[in-house]
Amino acid sequence: MYPIRLIVVGKPKAEPIILLEKHYKKLIRPYARLEVIEIPEGKGQHTRQLLDEAARIKNALSGFQRPVLLSATGQQSSSEEFASWLGSRMDSGESLAFAIGSSHGFHPSLNAEISERVALSAMTFPHDLCRIMFLEQLYRAFAILRGGAYHK
Amino acid sequence: MYPIRLIVVGKPKAEPIILLEKHYKKLIRPYARLEVIEIPEGKGQHTRQLLDEAARIKNALSGFQRPVLLSATGQQSSSEEFASWLGSRMDSGESLAFAIGSSHGFHPSLNAEISERVALSAMTFPHDLCRIMFLEQLYRAFAILRGGAYHK
Repeated sequence: MYPIRLIVVGKPKAEPIILLEKHYKKLIRPYARLEVIEIPEGKGQHTRQLLDEAARIKNALSGFQRPVLLSATGQQSSSEEFASWLGSRMDSGESLAFAIGSSHGFHPSLNAEISERVALSAMTFPHDLCRIMFLEQLYRAFAILRGGAYHK
Repeated sequence: MYPIRLIVVGKPKAEPIILLEKHYKKLIRPYARLEVIEIPEGKGQHTRQLLDEAARIKNALSGFQRPVLLSATGQQSSSEEFASWLGSRMDSGESLAFAIGSSHGFHPSLNAEISERVALSAMTFPHDLCRIMFLEQLYRAFAILRGGAYHK
């Protein structure tokens, strides 16, 4: 089954977020082998923290042919456009890994190194909520590709 | 205190959504008098259902000087742009009402009648999750206007 890795910083603290994540992971299970990697939050002052996280994110992205940063500055696309992009990646057999940054975003070195971006919104959302938004959108993409009733 | 009305179709069924809604409503309380109006889902076949909902939404929007539809087809704006738009509305003293459609969106008659749009994303999200995304973004807008640490 198609492997997709999601890299996130920190563990969600709020119970509703944990429950929603479980819910969407279960929905995705028939379509992809999704692996959520939680890296620890970087320590110290702002830039130092982002640098720490960048090293860990880079490490978790390594070996994947198509590393993608989830970022509000990426191309805004509709759910249909995202589904079609995902479908092409799966058809090409490329392994996919997505990363959601911490609340300060990504260190410039990571932004410079990885050019592929997907935007969940032009607005900024808490990174815990972004996890849910991404998983919902991933499930929606599979529903669109399959042609089900979920996406009307 | 500044009144803001949010009109939504149906009640959220999932417990995590109910909890997150409560959480953000509490955060917003010091900044605005937010009122969430839940109108019942329209009945019958697709177009009939949307027409039913449109009548109820129009009714709930009436009397508000600035009625706004939340729609993926609206202008994509950043959190800062949304906050600045909200700040101008509050400064002008206009009363604000937002509507989130059901999973089929809005009836064309409502789209034709109300031109102001705000997009939470170019992607389609479940309307229950849109409630949370909107409330979070409203709170974030107040945090931006106030200049707090929430929005970094």
